[in-house]
Amino acid sequence: MKGTVLYGPRDVRFEERDAPEIFKPTDAIIRISATCVCGSDLWPYRGISSFPEPTPMGHEYCGIVEEVGSAVASVKPGQFVIGSFATSDNTCPHCRAGYQSSCIHREFISRAQAPVLRVPLADGTLVPTPGIPSDDLIPSLLTISDVLGTGWFAADAANVKPGMTVAVVGDGAVGLLAVLSAKQMGAKRIIAMSRHASRQKLAREFGATDIVTGRGDEGVARIKELTDGIGADAVLECVGTHESMMQAIHSTRPGGSVGYVGVPHGVELDGEGLFFTHVRLHGGPAPVRRFLPELIDMVWNRKIDPGKVFDLTLPLDEVAEGYRAMDERRAIKTLLRP
Amino acid sequence: MKGTVLYGPRDVRFEERDAPEIFKPTDAIIRISATCVCGSDLWPYRGISSFPEPTPMGHEYCGIVEEVGSAVASVKPGQFVIGSFATSDNTCPHCRAGYQSSCIHREFISRAQAPVLRVPLADGTLVPTPGIPSDDLIPSLLTISDVLGTGWFAADAANVKPGMTVAVVGDGAVGLLAVLSAKQMGAKRIIAMSRHASRQKLAREFGATDIVTGRGDEGVARIKELTDGIGADAVLECVGTHESMMQAIHSTRPGGSVGYVGVPHGVELDGEGLFFTHVRLHGGPAPVRRFLPELIDMVWNRKIDPGKVFDLTLPLDEVAEGYRAMDERRAIKTLLRP
Repeated sequence: MKGTVLYGPRDVRFEERDAPEIFKPTDAIIRISATCVCGSDLWPYRGISSFPEPTPMGHEYCGIVEEVGSAVASVKPGQFVIGSFATSDNTCPHCRAGYQSSCIHREFISRAQAPVLRVPLADGTLVPTPGIPSDDLIPSLLTISDVLGTGWFAADAANVKPGMTVAVVGDGAVGLLAVLSAKQMGAKRIIAMSRHASRQKLAREFGATDIVTGRGDEGVARIKELTDGIGADAVLECVGTHESMMQAIHSTRPGGSVGYVGVPHGVELDGEGLFFTHVRLHGGPAPVRRFLPELIDMVWNRKIDPGKVFDLTLPLDEVAEGYRAMDERRAIKTLLRP
Repeated sequence: MKGTVLYGPRDVRFEERDAPEIFKPTDAIIRISATCVCGSDLWPYRGISSFPEPTPMGHEYCGIVEEVGSAVASVKPGQFVIGSFATSDNTCPHCRAGYQSSCIHREFISRAQAPVLRVPLADGTLVPTPGIPSDDLIPSLLTISDVLGTGWFAADAANVKPGMTVAVVGDGAVGLLAVLSAKQMGAKRIIAMSRHASRQKLAREFGATDIVTGRGDEGVARIKELTDGIGADAVLECVGTHESMMQAIHSTRPGGSVGYVGVPHGVELDGEGLFFTHVRLHGGPAPVRRFLPELIDMVWNRKIDPGKVFDLTLPLDEVAEGYRAMDERRAIKTLLRP
């Protein structure tokens, strides 16, 4: 079997490696229907975060169960399943509190850009769809595994409620699906911060009512202007840089919330500054497992179409080009089909 | 009139200064029944935070209205009133959202350790009690102005709900009243972190079920041990140092909340570290005005006795000794009577 391996900055190879096998009785083996490249894959790809070489890549997946370990009870061969990028037993106290991505038995999936994948803790990680999906549903189902689940968590963590004014920092795929999520949760006004025409267009399709092109202090000033000097009720931070985090915090009204899901790189928060903003802060790796049933239902019934974030589809063996296109911002997000 | 002025580190003087007068039509003049020394007064007193010399001191107060400006409608001379340490118009968007201490017209009170005080924005800042209180109620009523209001906000900001396990970092007066607040909000288990026998005793009187004497990593480990490795549902940070903030964050379960009300001094939060804790963070200067009616009602009906935090009462002209006793931790909190 071939799979995706990152060797060094901008050096992605699709090369021969061992096919996965059942290793523990709680594992499942899945034949991947679709996988994709994540914005977070670009951190090591760009050499910004370090990694041991070579590193197998990919953590977003959906597909057909091929085989399950002897202890697996809730999914069976032949089912189409979606799982989170973080595995979970879904029974520990953190899971029961809805934070499955902090499960005490958590592992991070990291070999999904391949035709076949082993998923540990299958019972607590995977959720089957009501049947085998038609092919056109697969991109949207795939988004649930991480990018939609993460945008959804941004809105959930920021307590988005009907009637609210929400701002979204970041126009990557997560940011765009955070717009969609805020819309589904009833936000009245959704301000997308983006300076790219194609992304602005998609943000509007997903529910954005306003576009702000300014960044940093300029972006904050514009949000304040649009909200009569008050700030947004909720701000969804979907980038992870220090600048984007500050932009999010300072765009929020006192008593409002920042939901932050961009993996922080170089973010340093001054306690005293944060104190006087009166802003509520919550985020982290999205507990996708909590949202899987609801999001599968919404996609299955074609209530939402998050798969639109994929503006490039490639055969899996062209994965290197998929990374390049996202790195150069020629593509918002690359779908890969084995 | 004499009032309290801080000249430099550990140099508090009670000296002649101009009596306050109505300055704006929204002002009120109050004859102080009681005031006190705040833990936050110790930062400049110890020379840790800088200040322009000389600085009038005091921001906790209750007393009888002597005079009101022409625009004041909701309080009148002769009434006993309590106000927040932060003034508010109680009509701006931040006030209406319950964050009166971020009122767009906010001023911080700073001359309350005196017999007479001018309170700006009287209508939006002061709340009268149902009548003139008996003398023994005055200490408890005074606490509402800041120290109880702040402990209450710590619990409110950390979403304390019935049945929860709550930990309190800090055994100063705010921490002790955060224990009382968590108890009133229905916490089932309240772990007070304290290594002083007299404070432990008061914490237990206020509702603490467990005492942890360890600090830093040792304290965190003990909280984890007491909660089957999970962490507390809510942690109330009532100190404001980097160490106490880290202790609070790491004592909280994923998905749990830290309510932080200690004014941060030297607190630096690493974004990536915070991200993976999955902890919700909320705090700031307590919006005491939001809580005034409810807390006055509870004290008036003798449901709570927060005045117990005063273990030293002095005549106002001995204010310097009041600071010294708290600085040397001979007193938890000093009440001053003009």
